[in-house]
Amino acid sequence: MDKIVYSPIGRIISPFKEAKGTPIQPTAEGTARGKIELFPEYIEGIKDLDGFSHLILLYHFHKAGEASLIVKPFLENEVHGIFAVRAPSRPNPIGLSIVRLLKIEENILHVADLDILDGTPLLDIKPYVPEFDRRDNVKIGWLGKNVDKLSNTKDDGRFL
Amino acid sequence: MDKIVYSPIGRIISPFKEAKGTPIQPTAEGTARGKIELFPEYIEGIKDLDGFSHLILLYHFHKAGEASLIVKPFLENEVHGIFAVRAPSRPNPIGLSIVRLLKIEENILHVADLDILDGTPLLDIKPYVPEFDRRDNVKIGWLGKNVDKLSNTKDDGRFL
Repeated sequence: MDKIVYSPIGRIISPFKEAKGTPIQPTAEGTARGKIELFPEYIEGIKDLDGFSHLILLYHFHKAGEASLIVKPFLENEVHGIFAVRAPSRPNPIGLSIVRLLKIEENILHVADLDILDGTPLLDIKPYVPEFDRRDNVKIGWLGKNVDKLSNTKDDGRFL
Repeated sequence: MDKIVYSPIGRIISPFKEAKGTPIQPTAEGTARGKIELFPEYIEGIKDLDGFSHLILLYHFHKAGEASLIVKPFLENEVHGIFAVRAPSRPNPIGLSIVRLLKIEENILHVADLDILDGTPLLDIKPYVPEFDRRDNVKIGWLGKNVDKLSNTKDDGRFL
């Protein structure tokens, strides 16, 4: 199938300068704050975004190591398929995080609950809408036995 | 910033053959079933995915019209910025849907709650994990007054 080509619409400005030490998911360190710098040519696209409290960010894992179909994720000592984990070393290294929108100043979006590396190229912003994005009665497979350890887990550099 | 190049990992097999008439979000027609055909070279990557009940699919809106920063979305008669809506005509036309995983047969994933067009190129599969992906106390801006109409709303072809 044909290649698909995207261009970044902005970049993440974050206190996390390297993978090692970065929280592995936003909820693991809910207080981390940062900014989204939207490139000025896209500013029309954020009209009315300030009415939403949470944003879905899609971004390119620019520091991901080579793609691997089998990985040993954080929280775990066994290997799993890459599509059953959230690690960055994916065939298409697209990251997804839900952040809290604090305020918008021109083309700068101030956000909280950040778990993204500084300088990460941003691909898309979508409003988080519980009616579309929230599910109940969810089974989480291998993660079930580990998910309570999340809040103490940081990146140890294994996906560099 | 540099271009980012991805390659599809599979494609969606869906009862929705054209945009017009397709539910605009999965929860709007929760019963639609379909399949994900994962290209055989990626099959190792779904090891242990069968333990999860819900999947996040990222895909390329291959039928999206030209990108537009201001759009009049479904459910609405006013224009909003493209990043404040979920319409496909985005600068980087990446779609996001959460589907229910029914069963896996070799490289075919049977899913429900589908809202994706037949033939859509798939970019990534991630496990849906409430601890990462679910938020409470959410404000949904302009959508607030319309979201209850979702279950009766289908695509009218406006983003072709």
